[in-house]
Amino acid sequence: MAAVEAALRSHPGRPTHPDAMSRSIEACFNCSGTCTACADACLSERDVEGLLACIRQNLDCAAICLATGSVVARSKAGASRQVLESQLSVCIAACRACGDECRRHADVHRHCRVCAQTCDECAQACTEMLAALRAVV
Amino acid sequence: MAAVEAALRSHPGRPTHPDAMSRSIEACFNCSGTCTACADACLSERDVEGLLACIRQNLDCAAICLATGSVVARSKAGASRQVLESQLSVCIAACRACGDECRRHADVHRHCRVCAQTCDECAQACTEMLAALRAVV
Amino acid sequence: MAAVEAALRSHPGRPTHPDAMSRSIEACFNCSGTCTACADACLSERDVEGLLACIRQNLDCAAICLATGSVVARSKAGASRQVLESQLSVCIAACRACGDECRRHADVHRHCRVCAQTCDECAQACTEMLAALRAVV
Amino acid sequence: MAAVEAALRSHPGRPTHPDAMSRSIEACFNCSGTCTACADACLSERDVEGLLACIRQNLDCAAICLATGSVVARSKAGASRQVLESQLSVCIAACRACGDECRRHADVHRHCRVCAQTCDECAQACTEMLAALRAVV
Repeated sequence: MAAVEAALRSHPGRPTHPDAMSRSIEACFNCSGTCTACADACLSERDVEGLLACIRQNLDCAAICLATGSVVARSKAGASRQVLESQLSVCIAACRACGDECRRHADVHRHCRVCAQTCDECAQACTEMLAALRAVV
Repeated sequence: MAAVEAALRSHPGRPTHPDAMSRSIEACFNCSGTCTACADACLSERDVEGLLACIRQNLDCAAICLATGSVVARSKAGASRQVLESQLSVCIAACRACGDECRRHADVHRHCRVCAQTCDECAQACTEMLAALRAVV
Repeated sequence: MAAVEAALRSHPGRPTHPDAMSRSIEACFNCSGTCTACADACLSERDVEGLLACIRQNLDCAAICLATGSVVARSKAGASRQVLESQLSVCIAACRACGDECRRHADVHRHCRVCAQTCDECAQACTEMLAALRAVV
Repeated sequence: MAAVEAALRSHPGRPTHPDAMSRSIEACFNCSGTCTACADACLSERDVEGLLACIRQNLDCAAICLATGSVVARSKAGASRQVLESQLSVCIAACRACGDECRRHADVHRHCRVCAQTCDECAQACTEMLAALRAVV
């Protein structure tokens, strides 16, 4: 999704950190899609009862990533700084919680293994975006 | 939307605070719809350039309320406590920021006046849900 | 959520059918919240394996209702008429499919009974919005 | 986002067309993020008044793509076939409408040029998913 970066680079507000910003937006939308797919795969597993916590974490992470990606996409020109930073922090926590839960099933279910990795990448991208924001005083 | 409360009261997990929980879910989805409608009304105003910050706050608040309502709806049985409480806190901050911005236009635009009030109500409902969560140790 | 109607009545585009429009927006966001809550209650039931289709219908309906409510909220001033009418039609179909599935469990699970009724109401509100749109040639 | 494809390939329901399915899910979430970013860039342009239709199309397309990607992700095991196919059709129409509007500004605004291309790709991916579904009788 180089598209988001290209879009940001032509944003009139000239974001000061278009790389970190586009990577975190891409990661959030990507993670939301992967968590949604993992939740459905979990729902289809024979041991669905052992995966209920994973399904909920997937759905929470998918919802939180969407809100976060959307807020970051508007972050150049407006949103409250406090809201932006806090939403990024919640997203990092949600991705870590979902990644940890998915990892518990990673040996048995490949979709959980893949999803854990995607959550890790999203947590990392959001961490870098948060660092970039805080570096700009 | 008594429906959410009725659904929660028959949730097998027996939420310990179904009132606060259902009110915050209802308020979040309600606020998301109102902010979406206010953003579009702002986009249609002649003084759209003076309303750009309001449009962005509306869109942020709409996105954050959706994630929050969705996470609270799953809060009985699973979500990480830290994620839940933090997402509620972000939602309260987003509603306050949006409400404050809307209030600046409340004398001129009725949709902003109505939206500010809706944001206040959502902030209040999320504050009560957060208090209920913290009361249960 | 009289708020949405109040916001629409002050929309500069002067919607020709603010009643039908606000009722369908409210119904869509309301139904999304109720379906999200019902999905989680279903996930918590002992007979979760018998409720998997219901959970998926709930999640689909919740997602489709959100998109529909959001598109209708912007329908005064812009969206493609074809997209608007088609999205309303899909929402009606999704609400009916979810309502039918929920009704199969309505005797046993009150959350499904309540959710079926909410889906019916949303299908009805979207049907009336579609009729209002088509009446305006 | 090879992650979605990897997740689908380990889905117990063994999707009959994991390639088309994962490409359309990825395209939908990707397109949603790009449209959200383009809407904000448009809001920041000096000629915002000439971009209002584009902003609305972007927001509609972003919302519809999310619902579509989410419904497709659950399509193996459950959703109503009619709802699935209709939602894909609406998404194709929304992507085309948004792409057409963005193309009108493509010479002046790079974010619109990039977004038009992303919408085209999403319309194509959804068209292929729809064809794959219809090939399976």
